[in-house]
Amino acid sequence: MATVANSVAHPTLISADPFVPAREQKNLHNRWHPDIPAVATVKPGQVFNVECVDWTGAQIGNNDTSDDIRDVDLTSVHNLSGPIAVEGAEPGDCLVVDILDVRPFDKMPWGYTGIFELENGGGLFAREFQSRAAKAIWDFKGVYATSRHIPGVRFAGVSHPGLIGTAPSAELLATWNKREGALIEAHANSVPPVAYGPLAPGAYVGQDLPDDVRAKIYREGARTIPGREHGGNCDIKNLSRGSRCYFPVFVKGANLSVGDLHFSQGDGELSFCGAIEMAGIVTFSTSIIKGGVEKFAMKQPIFLPSPVDPLYSAKLIFQGISVDYHGDGTQYNMDATVAYKQAALNAIAYLMKIGYTREQAYLLLSAAPVESHIGAIVDSPNACVTLGLPLGIFEHDILPKDEGLKKLEFGQCAVRSDGVL
Amino acid sequence: MATVANSVAHPTLISADPFVPAREQKNLHNRWHPDIPAVATVKPGQVFNVECVDWTGAQIGNNDTSDDIRDVDLTSVHNLSGPIAVEGAEPGDCLVVDILDVRPFDKMPWGYTGIFELENGGGLFAREFQSRAAKAIWDFKGVYATSRHIPGVRFAGVSHPGLIGTAPSAELLATWNKREGALIEAHANSVPPVAYGPLAPGAYVGQDLPDDVRAKIYREGARTIPGREHGGNCDIKNLSRGSRCYFPVFVKGANLSVGDLHFSQGDGELSFCGAIEMAGIVTFSTSIIKGGVEKFAMKQPIFLPSPVDPLYSAKLIFQGISVDYHGDGTQYNMDATVAYKQAALNAIAYLMKIGYTREQAYLLLSAAPVESHIGAIVDSPNACVTLGLPLGIFEHDILPKDEGLKKLEFGQCAVRSDGVL
Amino acid sequence: MATVANSVAHPTLISADPFVPAREQKNLHNRWHPDIPAVATVKPGQVFNVECVDWTGAQIGNNDTSDDIRDVDLTSVHNLSGPIAVEGAEPGDCLVVDILDVRPFDKMPWGYTGIFELENGGGLFAREFQSRAAKAIWDFKGVYATSRHIPGVRFAGVSHPGLIGTAPSAELLATWNKREGALIEAHANSVPPVAYGPLAPGAYVGQDLPDDVRAKIYREGARTIPGREHGGNCDIKNLSRGSRCYFPVFVKGANLSVGDLHFSQGDGELSFCGAIEMAGIVTFSTSIIKGGVEKFAMKQPIFLPSPVDPLYSAKLIFQGISVDYHGDGTQYNMDATVAYKQAALNAIAYLMKIGYTREQAYLLLSAAPVESHIGAIVDSPNACVTLGLPLGIFEHDILPKDEGLKKLEFGQCAVRSDGVL
Amino acid sequence: MATVANSVAHPTLISADPFVPAREQKNLHNRWHPDIPAVATVKPGQVFNVECVDWTGAQIGNNDTSDDIRDVDLTSVHNLSGPIAVEGAEPGDCLVVDILDVRPFDKMPWGYTGIFELENGGGLFAREFQSRAAKAIWDFKGVYATSRHIPGVRFAGVSHPGLIGTAPSAELLATWNKREGALIEAHANSVPPVAYGPLAPGAYVGQDLPDDVRAKIYREGARTIPGREHGGNCDIKNLSRGSRCYFPVFVKGANLSVGDLHFSQGDGELSFCGAIEMAGIVTFSTSIIKGGVEKFAMKQPIFLPSPVDPLYSAKLIFQGISVDYHGDGTQYNMDATVAYKQAALNAIAYLMKIGYTREQAYLLLSAAPVESHIGAIVDSPNACVTLGLPLGIFEHDILPKDEGLKKLEFGQCAVRSDGVL
Repeated sequence: MATVANSVAHPTLISADPFVPAREQKNLHNRWHPDIPAVATVKPGQVFNVECVDWTGAQIGNNDTSDDIRDVDLTSVHNLSGPIAVEGAEPGDCLVVDILDVRPFDKMPWGYTGIFELENGGGLFAREFQSRAAKAIWDFKGVYATSRHIPGVRFAGVSHPGLIGTAPSAELLATWNKREGALIEAHANSVPPVAYGPLAPGAYVGQDLPDDVRAKIYREGARTIPGREHGGNCDIKNLSRGSRCYFPVFVKGANLSVGDLHFSQGDGELSFCGAIEMAGIVTFSTSIIKGGVEKFAMKQPIFLPSPVDPLYSAKLIFQGISVDYHGDGTQYNMDATVAYKQAALNAIAYLMKIGYTREQAYLLLSAAPVESHIGAIVDSPNACVTLGLPLGIFEHDILPKDEGLKKLEFGQCAVRSDGVL
Repeated sequence: MATVANSVAHPTLISADPFVPAREQKNLHNRWHPDIPAVATVKPGQVFNVECVDWTGAQIGNNDTSDDIRDVDLTSVHNLSGPIAVEGAEPGDCLVVDILDVRPFDKMPWGYTGIFELENGGGLFAREFQSRAAKAIWDFKGVYATSRHIPGVRFAGVSHPGLIGTAPSAELLATWNKREGALIEAHANSVPPVAYGPLAPGAYVGQDLPDDVRAKIYREGARTIPGREHGGNCDIKNLSRGSRCYFPVFVKGANLSVGDLHFSQGDGELSFCGAIEMAGIVTFSTSIIKGGVEKFAMKQPIFLPSPVDPLYSAKLIFQGISVDYHGDGTQYNMDATVAYKQAALNAIAYLMKIGYTREQAYLLLSAAPVESHIGAIVDSPNACVTLGLPLGIFEHDILPKDEGLKKLEFGQCAVRSDGVL
Repeated sequence: MATVANSVAHPTLISADPFVPAREQKNLHNRWHPDIPAVATVKPGQVFNVECVDWTGAQIGNNDTSDDIRDVDLTSVHNLSGPIAVEGAEPGDCLVVDILDVRPFDKMPWGYTGIFELENGGGLFAREFQSRAAKAIWDFKGVYATSRHIPGVRFAGVSHPGLIGTAPSAELLATWNKREGALIEAHANSVPPVAYGPLAPGAYVGQDLPDDVRAKIYREGARTIPGREHGGNCDIKNLSRGSRCYFPVFVKGANLSVGDLHFSQGDGELSFCGAIEMAGIVTFSTSIIKGGVEKFAMKQPIFLPSPVDPLYSAKLIFQGISVDYHGDGTQYNMDATVAYKQAALNAIAYLMKIGYTREQAYLLLSAAPVESHIGAIVDSPNACVTLGLPLGIFEHDILPKDEGLKKLEFGQCAVRSDGVL
Repeated sequence: MATVANSVAHPTLISADPFVPAREQKNLHNRWHPDIPAVATVKPGQVFNVECVDWTGAQIGNNDTSDDIRDVDLTSVHNLSGPIAVEGAEPGDCLVVDILDVRPFDKMPWGYTGIFELENGGGLFAREFQSRAAKAIWDFKGVYATSRHIPGVRFAGVSHPGLIGTAPSAELLATWNKREGALIEAHANSVPPVAYGPLAPGAYVGQDLPDDVRAKIYREGARTIPGREHGGNCDIKNLSRGSRCYFPVFVKGANLSVGDLHFSQGDGELSFCGAIEMAGIVTFSTSIIKGGVEKFAMKQPIFLPSPVDPLYSAKLIFQGISVDYHGDGTQYNMDATVAYKQAALNAIAYLMKIGYTREQAYLLLSAAPVESHIGAIVDSPNACVTLGLPLGIFEHDILPKDEGLKKLEFGQCAVRSDGVL
């Protein structure tokens, strides 16, 4: 055994400044494309840090209006750190990625949750609520978050990267663009849009590149909004610090990118900008399982959750079925999305009985460690989906009681400077 | 304080014999209708037992062929015990129901999980798999289940009633029949059907009733397949023994019915007859919160899960998105149902790498305490849904390893006597 | 695969009546001795039930005085069901015992917790409190217990046999009697006694036996009060239904005996009769690991706890050190027993601030799923031991608050008919 | 609501350098005394950081010999950061301390666990093992620790301050010195000593002080080894990040001090230097409950554990009773310390069957999140104590199997340069 030096901080392979616009920083990119070169290379087993800006790249401020949310430029999100190549990884391998830690910058102990405008970003209830911009700022106090805009709650973060994935091959990218293009075409006038195709304006790769390579990436590069076969923006809250992920590899080196860090998120990330969005630092190590894609029949990543996720075992659980009983009463056919919306609307209605505004309730369900299960998905015609609201995040007892619910005064979240909500 | 006698078994208000066809037994019914009279009345606070037949009413045997599954009569399911009236409950109240215990009959320490035929019952993958009948018998050994048809696993049951609900009012029943009728009309030739309308053949109410009342119930009564606003067949595995449920009350007395007991079930109950179906005994107590529907903004039941659900914290988690990449590659629009199907197909493919047959894997995911979360539902166009397979139910280590997966010999589940699968 | 009959209840190898004095029943015994013959024999893998009386053998009634506790005959406890021989088990083997279920008799849905008199039984605080008899009756409502004598709490049971073990060899029995005899001799006048030697009066083996064999057993048989190398009265609350135990085997057949069932118990079982004592039914299966004692270096049983133990994760934790600061302030030397007593006295003082009497608090800490950890045991001179009181068992919020603790009116537990406490 | 600046790092009130000897740094102290002035003052509600050296103050290196452990100067430990005064706290109040985070320095991502020499520090098995110095270095990889000296394990840290407490009043200090002095006198020749009295050599207060004040503190100040009524070195592993603690206040300002950070620790901290000792940063906030000592009957701190402690639910549990069956077979009287030692020795023997050396096993039980419960403490004469070894920390399956245990090659821990062990 060799002696190890006493001071041996893990190296930071990508640095980022959370207060500087993403477009002014190196080693970030906001499109998926196989031709984006790796900005760093690691050996299997090496422990390293990657710094990330928040998903908007410093567009949102710690203040009390939501104008920045209203005006956010979504063509330039998400700003990912990477790609990072892993020595020896080849297409068909499985890249094992240990997410060893995820934490905010010491100099930025805060994050935000936003409701986007119907016409700019949307969210699960964009149409139902005819959404106008709103925002909650969260203060990070060690493992906990609290918000001056949503009083009465404090919870430990299940911190995770909302977005992490390996680079697609040219073939895979072509598949994505083709299938999503067909969907867009079929819903040409939808507001908000059903999907987002390649778009050169707003595209960014923070590296020196030949002009034609850059142009090709910007022209073809897949948007980062959805999760796909390589991982991507899966927004799975349990891909948290301490978890182990297994990614399929599509290009030599695997080319891992990461961003969209969340201090916390509820299942579903309802309001779209629904997690507690933050900038921060991820600590990784990796290994390779040769031929893992075939060995494990992988069509999408697999993962093992962390043993350190917060334990909020007592929950109040709301149900929803695939009938739009909060709207026009339409019966849908085994539609889990509709069912989840009803469960969430039931929970929002309940929280409003306590005294939260609709916007506060919507933001809270998005940001807190809410769990949503698919209960039943075979009992035609109704899927049944549940939403579990952890009781331990509330300062007050919120259980249904004989005397009803105690109504509290909770103020409101940050809204537009013109007062429109 | 009064002295209490030493022998004070809780009373059994409804008795049932698990080996006798349901139609030959009293106090069972298989349609929802406000005119079905209560067969017993309880006071709030009283502890009482209700016995239930299995959901098919003794159609399935403990043997090694699946012919009984193939030939099951689905017009006569589910056979519910009840209704039970609660003194003082009125429309608009909230009925609090404590599910104090759920257990099998001592004389029937076994249950079953089935895959139905495409043309008779279906299931989540009926079309994908062109399903033929298959079955697994599970032996109950105290808190655990094992199966001679699915070796290599043993797990503790999250035992629960798959079906529990209060009686609908006439208005609510009319709403159901109208909206579901519209859906059926819109998908007239679907196989399996998208929903099931009222159907006199097979209907049953095990009470003495005037002929016209019986005829009305049979003609109008809602089928028990789906969950609805009153609860019903929600198949939520965490509505388990030890949980507290809050039901909206629609008729005087609330008229609670229960059945479709499950020794265990995975989220989604994939194969439709997907839980470990059992006959058994439920222990209840109730209380009433006056005006609770308005107080708690209840459109559907709310519940508090039990503190005694088994703790299988380590899980291997599979993902799916709303792209049918196991089929024709179609891109769907934020469809959580499609996403869940992909996650489940990924898990099935993984289990087949270990050595399970496709049918065994399908049955296992249906019956074991699998958890399915809605990860993200706002990242257009892809919903992301996860399926967590608890590691602790397997006798062997099933984690992805450098050397791949160890393939084991697992035999197969019960199949049709003609050998068709 | 052979067809299995539909009705296949697990066999009950030992029957018992919870309302009949133990001495009038067959197949019970209350001493440990290698010469007690097995009353039944099982094959490895077989699932079977064993019925047990409560530990006193029907001496305690469901009523509101504690006279029966005051007058209990402790020479005739604990009444164990067995022994049961396992085919093929030999000395040096490891007997694997699955405790598949533990539940009360349907006809006796209640149990009790008692504080014994200083001079008859004692308990952890017998001297500190100069204990007089007190009792709480607990009603079993499915998975939950409540008590009319300790209002304001309801909790799920971690049900387990307080006493389970294999028969000792003649050599092991001799070792026990010698070492315990020496301790008794050294503390001849202690009240309550420090240990209990063999005692023919009160001894019982419910089998036909030759007179000389019976006399030998009664003369030499080890008392059942303490746990020892074979298991015995370890009163480990997590040896609960669903757990797997590994016992060393000392005699041919292993000769397993079981009794002293608890619906629930706190770590330490403070008041000695401190669990919720019950009669009931245990479901077992067994297997054998040849030569396991040597293979696993076993000097005492090992076990795997159950996945179905109730999850009360939120706890209020009290500390104690090895200074008798509730008494004369003496400094002890790394004495974990003294430390635990201080932690428990701190918890009792806290509960008295809420409104519980000292006896109610003492009984509650004994019976509820309280957890006690050894925090530190190397920081001379103070061991530090903690006691965790689960918050979820209380109907009210008991956390320390700015405004202090809300004092509630709780009545009192059952006391002696002469009113002495 | 006021706008908050975007960059608002929590202030660091006490800075420390983990690589500089403690005696050369300001704002540290290693004795408890009411006359040590506060080095900083906070307002209730304020979030702040405190940096801490490791408990030895940089005496131990990241290398592969244990000479530094052998030669450690224990007169100068523990080096605490503080005291910190809280505005408004007065004797009799309850100081609420939120331990918001505990983490290592980025520049020192490692810690150590040591076995001390019998004659210099000792440990639980100092005499049994005739201990010679040994050491394991642990590398911190985000939430996990691994060791090149104890292969085959990886676990998430339950990070906590081993030592945290409020300053004693003069009266309380006098009580401590008197009672511990009496114990020392009664065991004058014990090796290792049973307790440690005030000792001027090695004492340190890193502040400018008048000579007479310093002399008084050094002469009277209580050693930091044991936990006491104010908290102190309780080494409770669950006083972890995210927990809330309630301390009694004895002096104006409360004067909180903290140190002896642990990345992880097993219940009992067996080897004395048994946690994974680290330097690092603690984040706090505080509040005051006036008169809390009387309101809550506090004789020692109370706490609420964190929701983010790692969840290792599956454990292999070893038992011990108060018989020294690993030694001379002596029967002790309800001695939980003896019982815990037997349980730990059983676990060490088991780990040696797998292939660990005795020293590796001893260090592992000290450092990993092992849980020790007091099972029974009323079954005369045997206390029963359990030790739970979490299965999830091992890379291999360590359960007892039919074929015995798989013996692995594990190398050994760091030992003395002269090879003596």
